[in-house]
Amino acid sequence: MSKYQYLKEQVYEANMEIPKEELAIVTFGNVSGVDRAEGVIAIKPSGVPYHRLKIEDIVIVDLDNVLVEGNMRPSSDTKTHTLLYRNFPSVGGVCHTHSTYAVAWAQAIKPIPNLGTTHADHLIPSIPVTEVMSDEMIQRDYEHETGNQILDLFSKQGLSYEEIEMVLVACHGPFTWGVDPAKAVYNSIVLEEIAKMAFLTLQINPNATAIKQSLCDKHYYRKHGKDAYYGQGC
Amino acid sequence: MSKYQYLKEQVYEANMEIPKEELAIVTFGNVSGVDRAEGVIAIKPSGVPYHRLKIEDIVIVDLDNVLVEGNMRPSSDTKTHTLLYRNFPSVGGVCHTHSTYAVAWAQAIKPIPNLGTTHADHLIPSIPVTEVMSDEMIQRDYEHETGNQILDLFSKQGLSYEEIEMVLVACHGPFTWGVDPAKAVYNSIVLEEIAKMAFLTLQINPNATAIKQSLCDKHYYRKHGKDAYYGQGC
Amino acid sequence: MSKYQYLKEQVYEANMEIPKEELAIVTFGNVSGVDRAEGVIAIKPSGVPYHRLKIEDIVIVDLDNVLVEGNMRPSSDTKTHTLLYRNFPSVGGVCHTHSTYAVAWAQAIKPIPNLGTTHADHLIPSIPVTEVMSDEMIQRDYEHETGNQILDLFSKQGLSYEEIEMVLVACHGPFTWGVDPAKAVYNSIVLEEIAKMAFLTLQINPNATAIKQSLCDKHYYRKHGKDAYYGQGC
Amino acid sequence: MSKYQYLKEQVYEANMEIPKEELAIVTFGNVSGVDRAEGVIAIKPSGVPYHRLKIEDIVIVDLDNVLVEGNMRPSSDTKTHTLLYRNFPSVGGVCHTHSTYAVAWAQAIKPIPNLGTTHADHLIPSIPVTEVMSDEMIQRDYEHETGNQILDLFSKQGLSYEEIEMVLVACHGPFTWGVDPAKAVYNSIVLEEIAKMAFLTLQINPNATAIKQSLCDKHYYRKHGKDAYYGQGC
Repeated sequence: MSKYQYLKEQVYEANMEIPKEELAIVTFGNVSGVDRAEGVIAIKPSGVPYHRLKIEDIVIVDLDNVLVEGNMRPSSDTKTHTLLYRNFPSVGGVCHTHSTYAVAWAQAIKPIPNLGTTHADHLIPSIPVTEVMSDEMIQRDYEHETGNQILDLFSKQGLSYEEIEMVLVACHGPFTWGVDPAKAVYNSIVLEEIAKMAFLTLQINPNATAIKQSLCDKHYYRKHGKDAYYGQGC
Repeated sequence: MSKYQYLKEQVYEANMEIPKEELAIVTFGNVSGVDRAEGVIAIKPSGVPYHRLKIEDIVIVDLDNVLVEGNMRPSSDTKTHTLLYRNFPSVGGVCHTHSTYAVAWAQAIKPIPNLGTTHADHLIPSIPVTEVMSDEMIQRDYEHETGNQILDLFSKQGLSYEEIEMVLVACHGPFTWGVDPAKAVYNSIVLEEIAKMAFLTLQINPNATAIKQSLCDKHYYRKHGKDAYYGQGC
Repeated sequence: MSKYQYLKEQVYEANMEIPKEELAIVTFGNVSGVDRAEGVIAIKPSGVPYHRLKIEDIVIVDLDNVLVEGNMRPSSDTKTHTLLYRNFPSVGGVCHTHSTYAVAWAQAIKPIPNLGTTHADHLIPSIPVTEVMSDEMIQRDYEHETGNQILDLFSKQGLSYEEIEMVLVACHGPFTWGVDPAKAVYNSIVLEEIAKMAFLTLQINPNATAIKQSLCDKHYYRKHGKDAYYGQGC
Repeated sequence: MSKYQYLKEQVYEANMEIPKEELAIVTFGNVSGVDRAEGVIAIKPSGVPYHRLKIEDIVIVDLDNVLVEGNMRPSSDTKTHTLLYRNFPSVGGVCHTHSTYAVAWAQAIKPIPNLGTTHADHLIPSIPVTEVMSDEMIQRDYEHETGNQILDLFSKQGLSYEEIEMVLVACHGPFTWGVDPAKAVYNSIVLEEIAKMAFLTLQINPNATAIKQSLCDKHYYRKHGKDAYYGQGC
């Protein structure tokens, strides 16, 4: 039995949420999880359809993308995942999907404005979108640079990765993360719903404006921080 | 066995309609039911995903929000529910969801106009939307004040809660109610469908106008009041 | 055993397609079938949710709407069905739904233009929409007059009910019919899909025009009439 | 046992993906597969609903559309399939659907612009749309001419059928192909998702422009050609 069996199972379960929650079709999307003590991540193998995916197919690589265990190639997006793990030290899971409405906002190269409490329950600002990658970065090491695009965006805009666990990569789609693989996928589910609600809101009222700050803060802080009172406190 | 077992079962069943009818994702939404003789309500615990919810998780609180029975925290929206029960004496169940199209109208801060007989079968006027809550109310006792927003709206506009069993809270989402928890959820299902139909109608014809009064009344009164002839009369 | 058992079973099966094909929520919608030799129709009882509907609940009434057999009230739309049977002699089944996109076109009071071969496979002209009913007709005998609205439309526009087996009632929704209850429901399924396709087409290209006559005729007549070659010829 | 049993099974399985993936309602759509050594194709019979389709119903015809084996009429679109097989020598499967968003673009007579990496993962240019067929071609041999429309488009625009495995036929809907029937259906699934994403993107941002060439190429060539590194290389 693999010493990473527990991590593989966790990552397998999280990946299987993608088709169940309709966050991507065919082979698109991938979830990973990290074992910081061992210095490895577990990630979906590249191009495998979900209905054929098995726990033993999950690939183990270290944080420098070197294969540690597995018979299959890891996801082609692996370098984006590992760069995020190296720079976001409290993150335990990363999820990438091609969910329809989130991709549409990414293709429109528009941040998703915070229009209501469903959004405010999860983050205060708009869901940010990166710039389109430069030709130089594309030619260099594309998936690594995709991670850099995200890091640059958070750095330039002064955003906290612990407060904002989701981002749109321009012309591509969403990446989300969280304390573990299940939370990373949860954030992709929520992002897709927020993306759809924002789309519909602006169709109904093109002049709809962002939720007022006090109402936004109220919802965010009833779920986050020391005075949170949503959930079971565990 | 709890003396509230029957109420808990009723409320559990009503809550499980939310994911089944796709009225909210993950842990969003909550349904309650009241036992007026005992002076208590049963309500979903806060932040519990539906696929893990069990009958014994349902929480009993009194109408002043004091815990009566249960091992979990009640829904963070409990104070909205109890305020509605205290002011709407014939209501037996209350439902709150984040259903996609209803939320979009709430975020657009627009009442849903009555454009056809699907709407008119259930209520005569537009589905009303509250004003955005003032900063003072948000800071005070937010969930209690959410209930007050609803009560104020019905009072100012002279609406009957027995005729209009649904409302949109601005920038948030829908609340519905009815004679029992099942009817409250039924109204959330209907509201979501009406919200989607109205959205599509106005996309097809931005100049679509409200259904004429005589046709609206005909549909409403064939389902409501002493001359109703829809259904099995029981 | 009822002498109408076969008809009841056929009508029950056709009604159960409504929730399966998502043509209406909760209790909305109804399908009937006729036995011309016996002079009766079988129809869904009024206000019964589909998951509780049983074969023995199906109600038998004659073509003058007099109850022949059954313990429940027939659909409140029964008089519309019987009027169609009396005036459309080759019709064997009638279906009424509140399917979302068809209702949106009905509420927009716009005929659905024939924009492509999916539509042309089933009918040549636009899917017609009635006028809004006059106050006099609404007050008189509403469901009977709904049937009259359909008959008047077909008469005024010189339409053949055998060629055009679907119609939108303004501010209300679709009625469809066919040689038997199954074909009536089939037409409701097709209508909903055509309604959605036409909505999307005009969103993508507001200047999209009707399919050219020669292409429309080609598709219609490869499925209908003496030179048809689609299907298995039975 | 038929000597074409293996081909029939493959084609049956591919056809059954159409309802499962919601690419067409009722009897619409059809998939075929070719056995180049035997000079035959296997194809869905005309007008049979998917829930009644059996492996033995699959029809065998030769590349000149002559019936070789089967008790049912082949799909009315058979001549389009065979013409594509005769002119696209490396194609092993062809799929035709009436999937909703792809049909909407076809009815709008607009190519689907390449707005992001989901599209670029599969092809570089827009998804092309044919011209509307001339009256002469419609009268001649319609389904054969539908194939000719596709061949003319690829010839005039200098497109490679091996790089672009999907097309929209104006006012009608999509045809896709691939190395085998399963890949042909895969391309129909992907096309429908791309069509929906492009629709939503342009609703959110009507000024959204095509993905830049370098990013498009990067995604296309990480999945195609000698330097591909997506998937398991088999």
